Amino acid sequence: MTAKSRYAQAGVDISAGDQVKKRIGELVHKTHTPNVLHKEGAFGGLFSMQRLPESNPVLVSSVEGVGTKVKIAREVGSHVGIGKDLVNHCINDILTCGARPLFFLDYFACEKLENTIILQVIEGMSEACRDAGIALIGGETAQMSDVYAPGEYDLAGTIVGVVDESKILDGRNITPGDQIIALPSSGLHTNGYTLARKVLLEEAGFHLSDKPEEFSVSLGEALLEPHISYLNAFRQVESLVSIKGIAHITGGGFEGNIPRVLPETCQAVIDTKTWTPPILFRCIQETGKITKEEMYQVFNMGIGIVFIVSQDDTTTLKRTWSDAIHVGEIVEGHGVKMVW
Amino acid sequence: MTAKSRYAQAGVDISAGDQVKKRIGELVHKTHTPNVLHKEGAFGGLFSMQRLPESNPVLVSSVEGVGTKVKIAREVGSHVGIGKDLVNHCINDILTCGARPLFFLDYFACEKLENTIILQVIEGMSEACRDAGIALIGGETAQMSDVYAPGEYDLAGTIVGVVDESKILDGRNITPGDQIIALPSSGLHTNGYTLARKVLLEEAGFHLSDKPEEFSVSLGEALLEPHISYLNAFRQVESLVSIKGIAHITGGGFEGNIPRVLPETCQAVIDTKTWTPPILFRCIQETGKITKEEMYQVFNMGIGIVFIVSQDDTTTLKRTWSDAIHVGEIVEGHGVKMVW
Repeated sequence: MTAKSRYAQAGVDISAGDQVKKRIGELVHKTHTPNVLHKEGAFGGLFSMQRLPESNPVLVSSVEGVGTKVKIAREVGSHVGIGKDLVNHCINDILTCGARPLFFLDYFACEKLENTIILQVIEGMSEACRDAGIALIGGETAQMSDVYAPGEYDLAGTIVGVVDESKILDGRNITPGDQIIALPSSGLHTNGYTLARKVLLEEAGFHLSDKPEEFSVSLGEALLEPHISYLNAFRQVESLVSIKGIAHITGGGFEGNIPRVLPETCQAVIDTKTWTPPILFRCIQETGKITKEEMYQVFNMGIGIVFIVSQDDTTTLKRTWSDAIHVGEIVEGHGVKMVW
Repeated sequence: MTAKSRYAQAGVDISAGDQVKKRIGELVHKTHTPNVLHKEGAFGGLFSMQRLPESNPVLVSSVEGVGTKVKIAREVGSHVGIGKDLVNHCINDILTCGARPLFFLDYFACEKLENTIILQVIEGMSEACRDAGIALIGGETAQMSDVYAPGEYDLAGTIVGVVDESKILDGRNITPGDQIIALPSSGLHTNGYTLARKVLLEEAGFHLSDKPEEFSVSLGEALLEPHISYLNAFRQVESLVSIKGIAHITGGGFEGNIPRVLPETCQAVIDTKTWTPPILFRCIQETGKITKEEMYQVFNMGIGIVFIVSQDDTTTLKRTWSDAIHVGEIVEGHGVKMVW
């Protein structure tokens, strides 16, 4: 089947009943902020740049997928979290530049359209968008039976946010002596699922309904825990301290992501003894006999985002965020040094 | 495998050699316009809204895929056109609102990363972006072996453009007596490929290398002809005439797309005798014994876009565009009436 424009057309020319179309329309409209100029049937989503507080607005955008976490969602039959994952991942990406999110568009493609799945995914996106004040202004649904494996789907999304040019965070002010304060992740977020599935489900033979030792929920629930948005945490402190750099700990882990905000002459030293990775990570590591080096390169190991601030600002961050972890500091050098 | 951020990281953390990464970086950078604030390694693409000529800028965005045209591209081994398809489809979408494109982000996901394919796709996107003056500022590449069928890939993209609020095209001024002027498509664009493949390749047993009667190129070449961008055609006339409405003829054909810009009390009458559908469409129709009604609902039948203008402006359009086709007019009523 060919792809059809979805929300814009109030819309949904998918093989869905009127009730489903109506529900999708409701979920999408719930996210609309005053800057959305809604036009029934329009080929594009319209967002006015008027009355924004930024005097020199710079748009910041990012596109993401959710990886093979969709496979777990399919097996468990729970897709709301996948929608949240996608939106929150994108929010955190542009947050690293100091940007606040404005609007979001998604792409959902599958082997065969299933109303339950698409409704749950949109419900999750709608909820995450509303939590963050983002308008869901565009979407595309495609059924491509010969491209996707039987029963499978993929989901990708694009976020557009804004930052005042003078407030762009790019790490240029980071200097030796600065400190690295982290906030916990809620789980794997959206990284490392192919490895996690292989180790836990294929090799160790766990079932998603199993509750391995030390787990407080089932393996399926632990693996589906949605990606956290750090937007509110950022808002809590942005006027209190001078944030010098933010790195979102996604694919590539600490060594893959922190250098993206570091000046050439700075090294981030991460002391892995400052926190204990949650049981899900330890279970993957032990079950799969994976080296700690590889674990910290593939997974976030319990850390979702790191903020780099001057020594003077660390107290404020730790006082504001009860779950803050002081994971390391900046020294002269290059890249990231993991201390075991 | 987990998904990795691509261009932003100059980037390309995919399993590609340094040469491939370098080439992708070059193709992406070639598209960068003065408003792009490039930051090596950034988690988001930065685009400044300063020095834009629009006094009350409204952002217009759209997300699209390319449907199962990717299957033909894979079989022929030619992917540059797919990249162009994606960008041009998105350009035409927002053009219908009167918007000019600013920047673009893509999502490429596959069963197994193949450098040749991804390089060709990005080459096509880069070329189409440069032709339109759009910056390719973000991308995501994901390898998801259990989600995609063997050897397959999917491609989706998001465009963001801008229009002055006073110049938003929404069809509200369309009245009975207005005329409908069309521009030809280059082929199927990106719609109806599942049906076309079924009819031509499965049922009729054609090979993509075949050159059926009346065809000037092989079937594969005809099917891969990239989607036309109508941006330049629009620019040629936007200051000369008062365009009242534009409809991009995509999935759903005339009846699915023209009503998206029509006031409730207007009907578009399309006289199908005003043009002859190119041989590719006739071949699909005859081979598949498809009714003409269905053909015009699934395929564009040789018409890529329609412009609705007052009677007085039709001469200017026809004089400016040598390939313009006067396909119909607006009368009192509702929806679309096809005249056979």
